[in-house]
Amino acid sequence: MAVAILTHDAFPDRAKTAVGLLRYGDRTVEALVDRERAGQRVHDSLPDVQDAPIVASMADAPEVDTLVIGISPIGGEFDESWREDVRTALERGCDVYSGLHDFLADDKEFARLAEEHDAELHDLRKPPEDLTVAAGTAGDVDATVVTTVGTDCSTGKMTASFEIRDAARERGLDAAVVPTGQTGIAITGWGIVIDRVIADYAAGAVERLVEEAQAADLLVVEGQGALAHPAYSGVTTSILHGSVPDALVMCHEAGREAIHGYESFDIPPLPEYVDIYERLAAPISDASVVAGMLNTRHLDDGAAADAVAEYSDALDAPATDPVRHGVPDEILDAIL
Amino acid sequence: MAVAILTHDAFPDRAKTAVGLLRYGDRTVEALVDRERAGQRVHDSLPDVQDAPIVASMADAPEVDTLVIGISPIGGEFDESWREDVRTALERGCDVYSGLHDFLADDKEFARLAEEHDAELHDLRKPPEDLTVAAGTAGDVDATVVTTVGTDCSTGKMTASFEIRDAARERGLDAAVVPTGQTGIAITGWGIVIDRVIADYAAGAVERLVEEAQAADLLVVEGQGALAHPAYSGVTTSILHGSVPDALVMCHEAGREAIHGYESFDIPPLPEYVDIYERLAAPISDASVVAGMLNTRHLDDGAAADAVAEYSDALDAPATDPVRHGVPDEILDAIL
Repeated sequence: MAVAILTHDAFPDRAKTAVGLLRYGDRTVEALVDRERAGQRVHDSLPDVQDAPIVASMADAPEVDTLVIGISPIGGEFDESWREDVRTALERGCDVYSGLHDFLADDKEFARLAEEHDAELHDLRKPPEDLTVAAGTAGDVDATVVTTVGTDCSTGKMTASFEIRDAARERGLDAAVVPTGQTGIAITGWGIVIDRVIADYAAGAVERLVEEAQAADLLVVEGQGALAHPAYSGVTTSILHGSVPDALVMCHEAGREAIHGYESFDIPPLPEYVDIYERLAAPISDASVVAGMLNTRHLDDGAAADAVAEYSDALDAPATDPVRHGVPDEILDAIL
Repeated sequence: MAVAILTHDAFPDRAKTAVGLLRYGDRTVEALVDRERAGQRVHDSLPDVQDAPIVASMADAPEVDTLVIGISPIGGEFDESWREDVRTALERGCDVYSGLHDFLADDKEFARLAEEHDAELHDLRKPPEDLTVAAGTAGDVDATVVTTVGTDCSTGKMTASFEIRDAARERGLDAAVVPTGQTGIAITGWGIVIDRVIADYAAGAVERLVEEAQAADLLVVEGQGALAHPAYSGVTTSILHGSVPDALVMCHEAGREAIHGYESFDIPPLPEYVDIYERLAAPISDASVVAGMLNTRHLDDGAAADAVAEYSDALDAPATDPVRHGVPDEILDAIL
């Protein structure tokens, strides 16, 4: 599948979905559509992901069959300055993927153009309409299921999930990520945004994803939120139990001590936090925290190495910064 | 208001909405509609609630102005075998209250009949449209907040909540139940069905209810599901954290050893289960299990007394069967 990604004025720093696609996507990115950097290439800004030319508009894009909206602005609203590019993509018969709160399929012009040109509109935040409650059967899949959990939101669960997948693939294993958020879904073209699902069906939606996933050896379930989070712990619990994991990987950002945006709530001491996750998991599956992933982006190399060592001691499990140091064999061994 | 309650093939054990209305509602129940027990009376099955005749269909029901769907099956789907009774009720001009996931107002025939006969369809699971994520502020209310939790679904959390409310009122306290399920909402006419809310907003919905509740001394938050439940634990967690409770009351049904409908999942040993609840609550509020409520409906008096004593020992807290023995002072003292 040949993909163009719309990132107008946002690449790379405010185009998390685009960067995720370039780094972890199975699809070939033929072009970025970004009027601000037209004429440059991806590698001029991000040398460590797949390269692609940057064009000013969809009209300038090479032959592709898919356009992905690669920006998730605060509020998730559609920007009318993108309309011409989406229109052009649909007129060229391209499917369009969007993780915006505003559903493209609810836009009369886009819906009409999609029908006229036999193109599909994929609103990645829209949950399926036939979800049900969990049956508790996700544990019956043959593959090993590992679920990423965290000390807070935005600690790197999605990134850790893809890095674990890639390390397993490098070992020759059939591995897949089970995406539960819009970026992971945009990267894989598959998944359900669990936090948008009716609470009663959240675990059932995770269960469905695990049972539909196409990988014989390893499924890495992308966690959301955190068990000590005042607002999102319910979603975290639904993923923890709905995925019936064989193992857990704990994700944390170095130096973070309180819940982001809820600073009156401290992040529990790591050994206690691990215990909370394992005790809550236990009635459903015998899953323990087997490894740690630490986001050290704010530290220099020396401080990062020290922080990872300290984190590993606190967890009593092997740890790494998957972006800075990759996923070493000892961690993959602990997971499998 | 004169009410008929539909409980086909489910009364009393699988019709907890009906039982709650019969026990705590301030409306007169004129009849149960249950083809399985037609010709019997409520007191033939439940002697300790308001009595009413049981008829086979709405066509046989006496004069009423309201039909309540008194069953909440797993999955919450409408059973087509109930259609004729709902149709008849609407044709008689009765309002119809439903706590099902399937909204009656979305059923074209029911919507048309309601309009034709000036009847109202009340879908109690339909959440408000302006919900948001939790701010973590429910702990700021002046009243003592106690949240009922359970070892499984249908262990008596709603019943315990109302019994605690009534015991506190008998002591002269200003107490209210914070209803999170359709039965409590049907009884109080206020609340939000939390399991129907978008997962991201579930804790925020509980927070709103706690902050809107009108009682100066005691708020009893009705819990849902159970932390060891494969499908509903996310909702349980959202209520546990969203309500920021001062204390927890653990509800259990005597003799139940596995999760109902999920028999491959054992109910954890009680001391362990209490520990899971308290450890998960701890990052948000310092709430411990201060009392136990045991549903002994399947036991004789002697066995019930033994079971309550045994339950109290296992919890290391005072316990009672609130329906059989009421809520004694020592338990109300432990809660306050």
